Amino acid sequence: MEKVYVIGVGMTKVGEHWEKSLRELFVEAGLKAMKDAGVERDDIEAVIVGNMSSGFMQGQEHLGPLMSTYLGLRGVAAAKVESACGSGGIAFHYAFLSIASGLYDCILVGGVEKMTDVATPDVLSALIMADDQEYVASTGITFAGLNALVYREYMKKYGVKQEDIALFSVHDHKYAKNNPYAQFPFEVTLEQVMSSPLVADPIRLLESSPISDGAAALILCNEKKARLLGKEILIEVAGSAVATDILSPYEREDLTTLFATRKAAEKAFKMAKVAPSDINVMEVHDAYSILGPMHLEDLGFAKKGEGIFLVKEGEIEKDGKIPTNMSGGLKARGHPVGATGIYQIAEIVLQLRGEAGENQVSNAEIGLAQSVGGVGSSVAVNILRRVR
Amino acid sequence: MEKVYVIGVGMTKVGEHWEKSLRELFVEAGLKAMKDAGVERDDIEAVIVGNMSSGFMQGQEHLGPLMSTYLGLRGVAAAKVESACGSGGIAFHYAFLSIASGLYDCILVGGVEKMTDVATPDVLSALIMADDQEYVASTGITFAGLNALVYREYMKKYGVKQEDIALFSVHDHKYAKNNPYAQFPFEVTLEQVMSSPLVADPIRLLESSPISDGAAALILCNEKKARLLGKEILIEVAGSAVATDILSPYEREDLTTLFATRKAAEKAFKMAKVAPSDINVMEVHDAYSILGPMHLEDLGFAKKGEGIFLVKEGEIEKDGKIPTNMSGGLKARGHPVGATGIYQIAEIVLQLRGEAGENQVSNAEIGLAQSVGGVGSSVAVNILRRVR
Repeated sequence: MEKVYVIGVGMTKVGEHWEKSLRELFVEAGLKAMKDAGVERDDIEAVIVGNMSSGFMQGQEHLGPLMSTYLGLRGVAAAKVESACGSGGIAFHYAFLSIASGLYDCILVGGVEKMTDVATPDVLSALIMADDQEYVASTGITFAGLNALVYREYMKKYGVKQEDIALFSVHDHKYAKNNPYAQFPFEVTLEQVMSSPLVADPIRLLESSPISDGAAALILCNEKKARLLGKEILIEVAGSAVATDILSPYEREDLTTLFATRKAAEKAFKMAKVAPSDINVMEVHDAYSILGPMHLEDLGFAKKGEGIFLVKEGEIEKDGKIPTNMSGGLKARGHPVGATGIYQIAEIVLQLRGEAGENQVSNAEIGLAQSVGGVGSSVAVNILRRVR
Repeated sequence: MEKVYVIGVGMTKVGEHWEKSLRELFVEAGLKAMKDAGVERDDIEAVIVGNMSSGFMQGQEHLGPLMSTYLGLRGVAAAKVESACGSGGIAFHYAFLSIASGLYDCILVGGVEKMTDVATPDVLSALIMADDQEYVASTGITFAGLNALVYREYMKKYGVKQEDIALFSVHDHKYAKNNPYAQFPFEVTLEQVMSSPLVADPIRLLESSPISDGAAALILCNEKKARLLGKEILIEVAGSAVATDILSPYEREDLTTLFATRKAAEKAFKMAKVAPSDINVMEVHDAYSILGPMHLEDLGFAKKGEGIFLVKEGEIEKDGKIPTNMSGGLKARGHPVGATGIYQIAEIVLQLRGEAGENQVSNAEIGLAQSVGGVGSSVAVNILRRVR
């Protein structure tokens, strides 16, 4: 298997971009990533686009040739990869395989989603397509509603208070403040979170990731290309794994554990030959506050029911044992669903390069990004390592 | 790069399946492919689903975990790959890369589309999403309308009569008659084609591929797995390439040549170390009759404007120089868009195994399948070879 490196990163600010189209967002991120990598158009052999709902929300499929056309990359291989809100992290896996196979030397992988100028009922209809249309969406439940069931079950099973879970949102905002790409770059207090309106009981507005527009892109290459480009700092993809679970949570034996996270993490750790204790910085997919502690547990950083202690005891802070969501996470950086997994990896790359600004974790050498589709129905765990 | 083999094939009949859901179609094809390959559930490590429009037409995304759940494959890696009507052939490319990389030993790749129980205006809206929503679809043109422009330009440029182009449909139906999976297994005459209603002037109904439901699946594995399974006949993926063009035909310098086909073919031939003259059997993406001769040209079997002579002179017949669309092609086997590229490869595999029944080409050792998204905006060319 060829070694795979991430040599370029580009992001748009996450937010409401009514003045920019889907393609403009992607192209902006893509060109930034190419510039950052120091590659020319002729270097790029393929484009992979992570996106969930452009067909339903923009009436646009075929994002592969659309984006390569507007990037000026006529002729390259291209495709869209979809795995609901995990589309970005899973698109990255196929980009990794493209280079690892030896067939491609250099490719661009990005994610994009444009949601804020779509009518809210339509966005909710789009998001619930992550679960089963025939047996779940058709009941009228929203995606927040599904997560509310998980939230209630978790509190009941482990005797945890909502105030402790809601702290995850406070944490995210604290770091988003310093992220120039964040949708909500300001702090919130626990009191504000707990008194914000209910979205789906018990989930409150400030415990929910927002509706967002945004795009992020990465340039991946093999050893030969990295050498040709004379890269001084090099970020290797040490482990990349995808796993799935039964699509709908109602059919699973336990709502409070995401089996696909455990399985993907196990594979990725084995591939990278590292353990959770080796990870210096991490991005987890906290679409709702409850998922923060659950991911800490399922990724192997805490026992079940004890994820909140890592948060309360400061262990996920910048100087803690496992600095988490230094980007502001889904809650505060924002969640343009198909792009989110790429934003996470971009943040990890910046951290490993020592370019994360105010939120820089000192001596970060190994980072992990976890991207989730649906309520844990598909999960990508990607582990990156600075090799020089 | 690991060698990649196709060891199993499964198809549903193409047609109107109002009594079967999207998942039922895919699972039927998937289980057939697993049985054909002689693999158990534990053998499969990943599922890739080629599909264009399930979000818009069925309100269902996240086909990766949906299909793996219903195939009983909890835990496997999974994703959907979309590239409009070329989704199947391009999903196959990513399945190829998955095995070629060395990360996976055995995976299932399939395609599925369910279109006949969706209201016709909605199907037309879905199909035109293959082109540019902002500058093309928004004018009201249909996908047939775009192909009609290509058709007129081709006739004008090369002085070719419609009667000669329409022969491609007659050809397809002649072979569909013997394909148990074909949607329209009967012959049509040139007179019937030419007197059928206009769809988009000059394209007539019997020159157009139909709206279809169907699913097809393949099992791919590496050398190690093939040996473990004790396979006697082995079909290798000798070449697999994807290329794109400027998304919309109106921006191209020549409507009558599909640049992406030429580029993908060039790469695939080089990779397989073969020339067009080495191909024994071929499936081309004839969504409309005009595309048949154009593909013969762009794939390297005829000069521009001379594709029709291959048809008229019997060279694409079973005993001709380049037997083409022995399955009945898109016109007569049917065109469930995201599944079509997989149906094509399935036909090639059956041909190379000598299991193609009445339509068997004698001594077929090397076969080619071409899958197209949009009006040549994305193209996959996959070349298979019987190696024992």
